Amino acid sequence: MAKDKKLVESITPRSEDFAQWYTDVVKKAELTGYTSAKGFIVFKPAGYAIWENMQAELDKRFKETGVQNVYLPMLIPESLLEKEKDHVEGFAPEVAWVEHGGSNKLTERMCVRPTSETLFCDLYQKDIHSYRDLPKIYNQWCSVVRWEKTTRPFLRTREFLWQEGHTAHASAEEAETRTVRMLNLYADFAENFLAIPVIKGRKTDKEKFAGAEATYTIEALMHDGKALQCGTSHNFGDGFAKAFGIQFTDKDNQLKYVHQTSWGMTTRMIGAIIMVHGDDDGLILPPRVAPTQCVVVPIQQKKEGVLDEAAKVRDALKAAGIRAILDDSDRSPGWKFSDQEMRGFPMRIEIGPKDLANGQCVLVRRDTREKITVSLDQAAEEAGKLLETIQQDLFDRAKAHLESHIFSADNYETFTDIANNKPGFIRAPWCGDVECENKIKEDLAVTSRCIPFGEEGQIHEGDTCVCCGKKATKMVYWGKAY
Amino acid sequence: MAKDKKLVESITPRSEDFAQWYTDVVKKAELTGYTSAKGFIVFKPAGYAIWENMQAELDKRFKETGVQNVYLPMLIPESLLEKEKDHVEGFAPEVAWVEHGGSNKLTERMCVRPTSETLFCDLYQKDIHSYRDLPKIYNQWCSVVRWEKTTRPFLRTREFLWQEGHTAHASAEEAETRTVRMLNLYADFAENFLAIPVIKGRKTDKEKFAGAEATYTIEALMHDGKALQCGTSHNFGDGFAKAFGIQFTDKDNQLKYVHQTSWGMTTRMIGAIIMVHGDDDGLILPPRVAPTQCVVVPIQQKKEGVLDEAAKVRDALKAAGIRAILDDSDRSPGWKFSDQEMRGFPMRIEIGPKDLANGQCVLVRRDTREKITVSLDQAAEEAGKLLETIQQDLFDRAKAHLESHIFSADNYETFTDIANNKPGFIRAPWCGDVECENKIKEDLAVTSRCIPFGEEGQIHEGDTCVCCGKKATKMVYWGKAY
Repeated sequence: MAKDKKLVESITPRSEDFAQWYTDVVKKAELTGYTSAKGFIVFKPAGYAIWENMQAELDKRFKETGVQNVYLPMLIPESLLEKEKDHVEGFAPEVAWVEHGGSNKLTERMCVRPTSETLFCDLYQKDIHSYRDLPKIYNQWCSVVRWEKTTRPFLRTREFLWQEGHTAHASAEEAETRTVRMLNLYADFAENFLAIPVIKGRKTDKEKFAGAEATYTIEALMHDGKALQCGTSHNFGDGFAKAFGIQFTDKDNQLKYVHQTSWGMTTRMIGAIIMVHGDDDGLILPPRVAPTQCVVVPIQQKKEGVLDEAAKVRDALKAAGIRAILDDSDRSPGWKFSDQEMRGFPMRIEIGPKDLANGQCVLVRRDTREKITVSLDQAAEEAGKLLETIQQDLFDRAKAHLESHIFSADNYETFTDIANNKPGFIRAPWCGDVECENKIKEDLAVTSRCIPFGEEGQIHEGDTCVCCGKKATKMVYWGKAY
Repeated sequence: MAKDKKLVESITPRSEDFAQWYTDVVKKAELTGYTSAKGFIVFKPAGYAIWENMQAELDKRFKETGVQNVYLPMLIPESLLEKEKDHVEGFAPEVAWVEHGGSNKLTERMCVRPTSETLFCDLYQKDIHSYRDLPKIYNQWCSVVRWEKTTRPFLRTREFLWQEGHTAHASAEEAETRTVRMLNLYADFAENFLAIPVIKGRKTDKEKFAGAEATYTIEALMHDGKALQCGTSHNFGDGFAKAFGIQFTDKDNQLKYVHQTSWGMTTRMIGAIIMVHGDDDGLILPPRVAPTQCVVVPIQQKKEGVLDEAAKVRDALKAAGIRAILDDSDRSPGWKFSDQEMRGFPMRIEIGPKDLANGQCVLVRRDTREKITVSLDQAAEEAGKLLETIQQDLFDRAKAHLESHIFSADNYETFTDIANNKPGFIRAPWCGDVECENKIKEDLAVTSRCIPFGEEGQIHEGDTCVCCGKKATKMVYWGKAY
């Protein structure tokens, strides 16, 4: 394969400087751009199209579980934000405040929503009266603002796009079922749509959402061994209901508080896709989320029949439901290959005069560079199969990476050694005391990521806290995180 | 048809109080709700689902013309807003200002976007260097904030949802073509998707967008004879490009300014749907935009077979691509009918034991109340045809209403009489002087809606300005507007 590297600006190798590699990929694949609004990013067409595909898939899955979309105001009056004590403490320090509307000073300042629990509570308080009004299973697609000091595209910016689901239920059991259901939905979406394996678990009290009784999370491992929180689902119990007075008359004629949940996934998942799947040549997009799944590249395109046949292949792919484009620009094939690899298209199809003569074309995988020659009339079918293979292989590769980067520690020396020398998750027992969490964070910049669900999260007879040595109560996955 | 009106709160008749009728419909069809954020509305599931359908259709049509979606920051630094003189004068009085991020005062305050021309210009200035970078045909779906003093749901609120397209072109001709193309797209969408007939034309200089060289508009007539601006498309020429320094090297190696356009459509179109199609029993949704197109109502649903057969009909409709639901709640049929009529579902299907015995069911149109008996195995096919008929009939009815409410005036006395006594558009020639526009607005609360495209907008030999009597230069549609 003739590569014309000079024509494509080079990307810093991952092994040399992972942070710079990330920045290079984001920029050179034209996912984001900048304006004079500092700390904010522009989602350019290539970046936004990834989000649109994620949105469409998540929205479909949400609606299958009975979710209804709504849209609430982007500004929250200060008195509303303050109604739930833990919540305001968690968010007030990082919100943007609107103090003037036009030239008039507002009688009460309003913040740009950092999240919308308080507004949903305000609405539910007005709308919920009877058990007949329950459950409410609402979701909104919007952006939120949090005044971050240091920012990185997709991972931490002053504004990001997300969905936030907010539900109200008649019973604690129903709220818990919804909380877990949405976490499982996120996990399945991450694994089967984004090819990102995740660990499901519960956050410690220190790490849970401001105002929640329980926060469940999915955690993924990036290529550099750092963790990324990929989606969270919160059970609020009746805490917000009590703060906001959300009561209903139940079937037994008793006045009761509702039980609430919220759950969200954000554009930071685009960052996860980059850092889990990308390589030194740029982005690699899993086929299911890729806006362009296959690019057809004519070789010696001025030779008779080449461009026509390439267009026919593109059309056959599109007819088969594959998101395919034809690159008939006047660049050299080598330039196109490098450019397309940087942009992460999962596969390309090459067709030249020789292929034409043999009635064939060549499928080239972005992930492995493997080339597969197929007959022209089989191109669409084979491309469809190959995309499925690539999707599965990307997941398997990421899964193997995750599994080979989970290390166990049963004492602080081992824990410290792993934290300093082996990037990945550290599986270690914990007493349950926040003091130990604080010490580990201070000593090693490592935080508790989650207490895994099921057997994995159980401690066993004789397990002791990896930090203080007292009796352990929980098994925790720890890690350095984005 | 047994109606159980008492069970459905009554709606104020249109003839009695149109504004109250509108408020009643919006509330009782559960399109919007309120929170403590004053002047802002909640888009509830029934309201938001209408917007989702509009979005999906517009987005598909946009992409067919080469539009790419992006997302830009919601906050604009003050210095950026101020770069184009007319623009800042138009918008600064009505924007919300953010002065604090967390507890820190910002070194420069930022406004919540009222529209995003300035940000797109900022991005284009950085990204456009060569003719190879053109055209840029970007669009974003988002919400904007304008600090309105008096608000009405959908029509005028402090925040609304919209799309804003922003393009940059190498030539003035190309920009003009795009401006007109998008206006035509809006007109076709309004007429063929929302069944709302519109008048296409150009705004006078007084009424055009702040900073535009030309603003094109589509104007519709509501049931009460007031006009509603439904979508606008602006040609900026190179005014913004000069203010922001957006230059490119053309094929001839000359440095040139780009030519820009912008165009938008908003959630106020939901208000248009209500005010064009609704009647004294509530909302009437045109089938193409209706989230629920058909509701199946079992009569005596406890009788053997009724509920099963109703479910089968619902399934057959869904299989035929019709958005159908089954109402098997324990309410009486009469209650359901009134409730469904208020919510504007375009049609229902009634199935009772007698129908079952005869192998038939009854289709009932929301718009005309006409009942059509069809055999059960033809239900889906006939329902599909009927929905198309309803769509067309709603358009025809609205078109007839529009045409019968256009009045011509060639002198101020006639003009005044029409303005005071005949709600609708007034077609009258104008000299082109803003003084006359101001006088008409002051005297009669009537504004120039547009100078219609084509023959309609032409004046003829001897036409004189309806206000000052001087030689006319343009034919204008005038009206009272929302």
